[in-house]
Amino acid sequence: MTQNTFDAHEPMSHLDAPSVIRTKRDGAALSDAAIDWVIDAYTRDRVTDGQMAALLMAIFLRGMSGHEIARWTAAMVASGERFDFSDVGRPTVDKHSTGGVGDKITIPLVPVVMACGGAVPQAAGRGLGHTGGTLDKLESIAGFTAEITKTQIRQQLRELGAAIFAAGELAPADRKIYALRDVTGTTESLPLIASSVMSKKIAEGAAALVLDTKVGSGAFLATESESRELARTMVELGREHGLTTRALLTDMEVPLGRTVGNAVEVAESLDVLAGGGPDDVVELTVALAREMCDAAGLDAVDPAQTLRDGSAMDRFRALIAAQGGDLEAPLPIGAHSETVTAPRGGTMGDIDAMAVGLAVWRLGAGRSAPGERVQFGAGMRIHRRPGEPVAAGEALFTLYTDTPERFAAALSELDGAWTVGDQAPPARPLIIDRIT
Amino acid sequence: MTQNTFDAHEPMSHLDAPSVIRTKRDGAALSDAAIDWVIDAYTRDRVTDGQMAALLMAIFLRGMSGHEIARWTAAMVASGERFDFSDVGRPTVDKHSTGGVGDKITIPLVPVVMACGGAVPQAAGRGLGHTGGTLDKLESIAGFTAEITKTQIRQQLRELGAAIFAAGELAPADRKIYALRDVTGTTESLPLIASSVMSKKIAEGAAALVLDTKVGSGAFLATESESRELARTMVELGREHGLTTRALLTDMEVPLGRTVGNAVEVAESLDVLAGGGPDDVVELTVALAREMCDAAGLDAVDPAQTLRDGSAMDRFRALIAAQGGDLEAPLPIGAHSETVTAPRGGTMGDIDAMAVGLAVWRLGAGRSAPGERVQFGAGMRIHRRPGEPVAAGEALFTLYTDTPERFAAALSELDGAWTVGDQAPPARPLIIDRIT
Repeated sequence: MTQNTFDAHEPMSHLDAPSVIRTKRDGAALSDAAIDWVIDAYTRDRVTDGQMAALLMAIFLRGMSGHEIARWTAAMVASGERFDFSDVGRPTVDKHSTGGVGDKITIPLVPVVMACGGAVPQAAGRGLGHTGGTLDKLESIAGFTAEITKTQIRQQLRELGAAIFAAGELAPADRKIYALRDVTGTTESLPLIASSVMSKKIAEGAAALVLDTKVGSGAFLATESESRELARTMVELGREHGLTTRALLTDMEVPLGRTVGNAVEVAESLDVLAGGGPDDVVELTVALAREMCDAAGLDAVDPAQTLRDGSAMDRFRALIAAQGGDLEAPLPIGAHSETVTAPRGGTMGDIDAMAVGLAVWRLGAGRSAPGERVQFGAGMRIHRRPGEPVAAGEALFTLYTDTPERFAAALSELDGAWTVGDQAPPARPLIIDRIT
Repeated sequence: MTQNTFDAHEPMSHLDAPSVIRTKRDGAALSDAAIDWVIDAYTRDRVTDGQMAALLMAIFLRGMSGHEIARWTAAMVASGERFDFSDVGRPTVDKHSTGGVGDKITIPLVPVVMACGGAVPQAAGRGLGHTGGTLDKLESIAGFTAEITKTQIRQQLRELGAAIFAAGELAPADRKIYALRDVTGTTESLPLIASSVMSKKIAEGAAALVLDTKVGSGAFLATESESRELARTMVELGREHGLTTRALLTDMEVPLGRTVGNAVEVAESLDVLAGGGPDDVVELTVALAREMCDAAGLDAVDPAQTLRDGSAMDRFRALIAAQGGDLEAPLPIGAHSETVTAPRGGTMGDIDAMAVGLAVWRLGAGRSAPGERVQFGAGMRIHRRPGEPVAAGEALFTLYTDTPERFAAALSELDGAWTVGDQAPPARPLIIDRIT
């Protein structure tokens, strides 16, 4: 018996999977030709999942240069269709969040930008794991669908100023790689995150893009400096592809707003569109809307005004109606609830965003595998936010699910994830920095 | 859209593929339970090729401790049957080579040890890549088969003193992982090589084992110190499993003997068994036989004597006949040949083992993918070995194949892989060290 290391195909061509893998494994840069070849070959099932997974792990541990990331992104864009919405008669601009807990911002933000005169082609995703997906939230509205044709997307952009659709056709290489990363422990990698986000957003066809890059417990990269580097890398990738791109670095130590889940986040978004809602959700919505308007060259209308005067709410109703949704129907809420009460009086301390995300996933709001159904009524209300006064015995969190056997695991995720103390936790700015 | 890093299964169990992968990815040791679980789950197709490939790359780049290697090996042994040949009435002992070019040593060695009174249960492999496989060589003998039952293996061990069989049933986890490593650039890893070799050899059921660990151009690890560490690791793994194990470190800068291929190596082995053959092949055969006899507690017969007195040849004939082979039938030789001649007179310099291995693979002696047919008649004769005098225009190499369109690629592999000069290359010992 012999141990064989030799790749029999290698001498036939410089572009075979084992030699591409070995190049990155040994710490060298991948050539443009190697990147183009491996992305195309994987999309066409000529490179196996095993080979791509080995390459992704090598990239995770060895990194990629700025040039490699740019080429990898371009190759993923080229793997599918690239939309062009320059003819819809309004400046097109989109937003992407790197993922957070309670991050429903897309829902109020899109109609605010519509009301300001922009057109938002939003290729949205479903959640998998501790962060929810915008599509899962919107689908809790009876009748709403994101499965709309390109013709309908274009028509909505022209006539209404937005369309929210599943990213399906865009960057099919990324879709395949994203699913593989999720099960092979290769997600939390700056080059892989940046190229995944930007390939979809470049293919989506907006002229401008604003990134909400999260920092903190609920974010995907561990440190602020990594998140900052991710934002810089994505802004640069956008620029290279002719997309006006800027990023905000925002806090994700604690959940956004007072709701985490699916329908509960839609309800909170409606509060914001009605001129109310939690301060942090309003602040981030307005800040991102200002960036989007600025990037799109829209300055006639103040975004905050569209929340006060109802114009954003009107746009939201029109958008949801155009995609089949019925806002008159009651939003679902889990049939069973459990309440967590304060063990003592004092001041609410920080609430760990990751723990809350996991608890809500346990309740059934998220999925364990692609394609699973989520519970639209599963979620959590956060009655006391960090710094708010608390009386002993008062409700702090209410958890909702249709399957009460899920409470035990959800409650155990919350264990140790919050405190009630004598002092308010140190204040942190919601918007940490702006990167252009 | 969100970037998800979360493994939805993780909180349900500590034993899921993404969390095992992340542990190694982040440089920590895998627990015994994690190793047992992932090997078993992969064998039963509960862990995907993509997940195992990501884990193998993480192991490649992060390494494994001695304890992890031992557990990984034990888990692979436990994935299938472990033979027990303690009842065959002779001391059982086997040999394994880490793989070389022109390494036909198993063929003369097994009958030498038989003639010395040992029983050799040899689970042999097919080649894939630049090193040939013993089975491919022996199958060039008309009628020979390694597809024999366990009953026949036991009977041959008792009555003849050897059986050469395909490793099929042994360590099925290793078989699957080995095939995956081959296509994912994760072969040249000490922990993965050591555990692969030793899992098969432990399962094979011999009481003692001698390892021929190669050093040099044709070996799988780059440096002597890595090969030495590999030998030490394998000897220790054997000891932990009750297998008397020792290793020789031997030179693989240049091919062994004067033939490389399939049938040509059988012919050279017959020369050795007839008392002739190249000095280096005889030296290594005798040295390994002495180690095997010593490890098995056999000291009545001098191995070198069995080559001189024909007793090893007799055993070889009986063994081949028992497995259906006909040594009276002519050995195949490629229908087409090309000769490389000396551009000048002088002394033959070193001949690069890897280049020769690749050239012979190009000629059709090896395969590009598992399951491919090899050409039994493909191969090369080396007319002048390093240090031998050369006259201008004299034949240095003759290449054989049934498919002459293969000559160009084979000849190009040889380009720059040898020299004729004024001085003999520095002499290197064939046997570098002995590790017990």
